[in-house]
Amino acid sequence: MKRIAIDMDGVMADVVELLLDYHERDFGHRKPIEEIKGLSEREAFPKAKEYVHSKGFFRNAPVMEGSREVIERLQQQYEIFIVSAATEFPQSLQEKQEWLNEHFPFISWQQMVFCGLKTIITADIMIDDRFRNLDPFKGDTILFSQHHNLLKEPGRHRRVHSWAEIGRILLP
Amino acid sequence: MKRIAIDMDGVMADVVELLLDYHERDFGHRKPIEEIKGLSEREAFPKAKEYVHSKGFFRNAPVMEGSREVIERLQQQYEIFIVSAATEFPQSLQEKQEWLNEHFPFISWQQMVFCGLKTIITADIMIDDRFRNLDPFKGDTILFSQHHNLLKEPGRHRRVHSWAEIGRILLP
Repeated sequence: MKRIAIDMDGVMADVVELLLDYHERDFGHRKPIEEIKGLSEREAFPKAKEYVHSKGFFRNAPVMEGSREVIERLQQQYEIFIVSAATEFPQSLQEKQEWLNEHFPFISWQQMVFCGLKTIITADIMIDDRFRNLDPFKGDTILFSQHHNLLKEPGRHRRVHSWAEIGRILLP
Repeated sequence: MKRIAIDMDGVMADVVELLLDYHERDFGHRKPIEEIKGLSEREAFPKAKEYVHSKGFFRNAPVMEGSREVIERLQQQYEIFIVSAATEFPQSLQEKQEWLNEHFPFISWQQMVFCGLKTIITADIMIDDRFRNLDPFKGDTILFSQHHNLLKEPGRHRRVHSWAEIGRILLP
């Protein structure tokens, strides 16, 4: 059974939506997504660092459209691990586990990994929105499109724009 | 640079000492270590499950003798990751990170992994006290002696009884 390592932020959890919400709350207008194309989160949102370190941020993230349904189906054919670079944000550890328990109740504690560098992970397929995680990975790679990676060429990674697209690639 | 994955509980954190303390508090006598040889934690301590799920348990664990000094020296020659099966105990996640920050300040968030199954980990050497983590591991394995593994043959794993012994094996 092939193993898939799936990223949380920007892949399962729609963190950008949340950043847009927080930014709108503080600055009074909602940035159109066109405006932040190619920008890192810190470039796009002046207070990004404060937001991601604040209590409740990760707990409140909306679920990425289609992720729950597709991951539940993937689990019938693949060994699924959820791998999140979470130790940079100590307050996020428990929030992320609670978030998974609520929105992905079919994912057990055995399948959760909260780490720093993802070079420690071995799997057949990695789904992630960050080049820094996909580039050193030895297996097949799927780049989940996000504003911050949109202007870069995907290189050897396969770019997808939705969970429906992932389903079409990985499910028969 | 070779990578070492080091377990926390029973290897860096002296969890047995803490279980003996909690048991003594509740039952009025301290079990001699001879009495729990070969027993699992749940066999040795009737209230083990309650203890390990209680707030503050992991935060208060004593540091295993010699671990800090040896790991700090190992870090000059190896890539070190601390890999703890922590997601079974959601309350432990932040406690474990705080514990590492306090007692092992030279370990950064990039080097921490809190997971369920350790089959997701790739490294050259694994130091652990559990056969279930060492058996499926593909690299070299070091079994840290603990009451619960004392009566089993180490098999292909190399058994050590202290951090001084690990230092003699891995440091020139």
